[in-house]
Amino acid sequence: MTWSVEYPRVLPARRPPGHEPRAPRWTLVLDAPTSLLTADYLAIQLPARGGPDEDRFLELARASAAGPGSTELLVATGPEGTVELVHLAYFTDPTAHERWLHDAPLPGWFSRLDPADVGFGAWHEVLQCHPDRFETIYSDPRWEFGFGGCAGTAREPMTTNGYFGAARDRFPVSAIDPLEPVGKQVRRDDVASRGRRLRVESGHDMAVIRSGQFWEPAEGEQLVDYEHNLQSKLLTGMAHLRDNPADTGTLSLRILTSLDPASLAPRRETSVLGHFHSLGELEEWAASHHTHLAIYEHAIEAKRHWGDARSVVTWHEVVVLPRTARSEYVNCVPTTGLLPWAPTLLTVE
Amino acid sequence: MTWSVEYPRVLPARRPPGHEPRAPRWTLVLDAPTSLLTADYLAIQLPARGGPDEDRFLELARASAAGPGSTELLVATGPEGTVELVHLAYFTDPTAHERWLHDAPLPGWFSRLDPADVGFGAWHEVLQCHPDRFETIYSDPRWEFGFGGCAGTAREPMTTNGYFGAARDRFPVSAIDPLEPVGKQVRRDDVASRGRRLRVESGHDMAVIRSGQFWEPAEGEQLVDYEHNLQSKLLTGMAHLRDNPADTGTLSLRILTSLDPASLAPRRETSVLGHFHSLGELEEWAASHHTHLAIYEHAIEAKRHWGDARSVVTWHEVVVLPRTARSEYVNCVPTTGLLPWAPTLLTVE
Repeated sequence: MTWSVEYPRVLPARRPPGHEPRAPRWTLVLDAPTSLLTADYLAIQLPARGGPDEDRFLELARASAAGPGSTELLVATGPEGTVELVHLAYFTDPTAHERWLHDAPLPGWFSRLDPADVGFGAWHEVLQCHPDRFETIYSDPRWEFGFGGCAGTAREPMTTNGYFGAARDRFPVSAIDPLEPVGKQVRRDDVASRGRRLRVESGHDMAVIRSGQFWEPAEGEQLVDYEHNLQSKLLTGMAHLRDNPADTGTLSLRILTSLDPASLAPRRETSVLGHFHSLGELEEWAASHHTHLAIYEHAIEAKRHWGDARSVVTWHEVVVLPRTARSEYVNCVPTTGLLPWAPTLLTVE
Repeated sequence: MTWSVEYPRVLPARRPPGHEPRAPRWTLVLDAPTSLLTADYLAIQLPARGGPDEDRFLELARASAAGPGSTELLVATGPEGTVELVHLAYFTDPTAHERWLHDAPLPGWFSRLDPADVGFGAWHEVLQCHPDRFETIYSDPRWEFGFGGCAGTAREPMTTNGYFGAARDRFPVSAIDPLEPVGKQVRRDDVASRGRRLRVESGHDMAVIRSGQFWEPAEGEQLVDYEHNLQSKLLTGMAHLRDNPADTGTLSLRILTSLDPASLAPRRETSVLGHFHSLGELEEWAASHHTHLAIYEHAIEAKRHWGDARSVVTWHEVVVLPRTARSEYVNCVPTTGLLPWAPTLLTVE
């Protein structure tokens, strides 16, 4: 038994008539109904890896395991040469998330940090929305990624893929809402964020993608192909987005490497966490820019070449959020996350 | 054709087996699917009625009529002897709301107010949620109240009424979510709100009720009965809630009188706008406190006595919100709205 949201369609689907996808794909389904999905990103921003602040963060993370449906530990190169260690927790129950915020050591530590008296930065970005504003795709159903790590979820084959507009069609709400942004966001790189605790309100219908790559099982030719071909195409695409934020609607882009939570060794697993001004701008890049077409065609071709033996897995999950003010930054570098794009900057007392 | 959200029930309904309501009641239905409902309250807080600030506010309100599904003009006695004029706008389309915020003169005026340089207060409280967190009841279907003023809505007979727990059962999300609050909110009356623009983040699952009374068509005995009996019971109940905020979970309570938007004359129409820490606390008062039982029994008895000739109409609409930070106060009295209950107070730059 699975449950999904569905609206009687008012807006036309993008799916071309008679479309048959070139490659099989899967999507996440929920066993039981849920009203709010939550991805909770909580990070420490350090001058470099290691040291007592990192140790403390990891200790708090380990002590906060009860509550989330799934947790991950990730690392990213932060702005201005910093390193960010990210604790990611997924929840299919919003009350469980509130209890975790209220009781768990890690969010408690974050909320008590004195921004004027810490030797590092820290941030907390909560993505929460109704499942009608959520969509996923997986190239292989055998692995649990993202929200798929929560109990009560499964990957199911689909055919809403392989055409431009498929991601939009997978959002239940797209049947009734064009998810159009209103207004333009303006960038500023000089936010006085050091020594302060700031909250950012993001605009209505901001789209946030976590797009994953997993090549742990890859060996031989496939490993070489991933590390020498696909990965560089991916990085080129990401550099294009990061270097052209205004044109592409890219508000924030982080390349995260998954860590083994026990040994802290990097896995052969990465994901790109990207905040976009709107779903339309993300689609525009995917549909028309050569850097995405290169990634897309490579993935299709690799699947065709290796078939079921394909050992590099790609997937993503996207949410389109209502207007929200759940991104908070403590003593961070001014270009961290959504700080440069804050239409409204809120100082937390 | 109507549309509604429904979840396969995981939690038991409160409805007693074989329940037949003592009085007929109606509820709001939507013709078309919608993903977010919005009630936008924008007010000016004045030392007294009249004067150029009020005139300006009314002029801006008149110039902001395009966009909302419905608008109302209301007046309330504010804290510390102030008077509040409230512009209330309902939207069934969240993008239309964003456009209104972006383009309409009234919200533009609000967002440009300099808190250090205004001779009045102003506040803006936006209630926005998925329709799964919304419920209504009407004692008479012939009038359009609240969200019922929007095109594409209708009142439909129901039998989910007349027992304690019926309001909860009417929330589609209650089938899968107990809507339990996490943590307690703490009151403080000394927020330094004068001269500042402050945003309040409210807790997860805060319940907000707008409970209406309409006696414009009432004459003779029914008019006397309303003004001398039911109204005083209502005011006694409201005084109890206001005087016992911590015990009852009452965060804010305003008694609003509807004004004719052209003549500004008060109508024989009032509504109570109440913010509660949780739905459970609101239910607790309704189920067990003598001040509510007096109102409830009076309404049932009046309907039984006058039948279809009953000319006093009562109704309410309730939302239970996810954690949100969409209440903003400019140079307001410290006890305005949610200010005294802010777990997190955000200074807007």
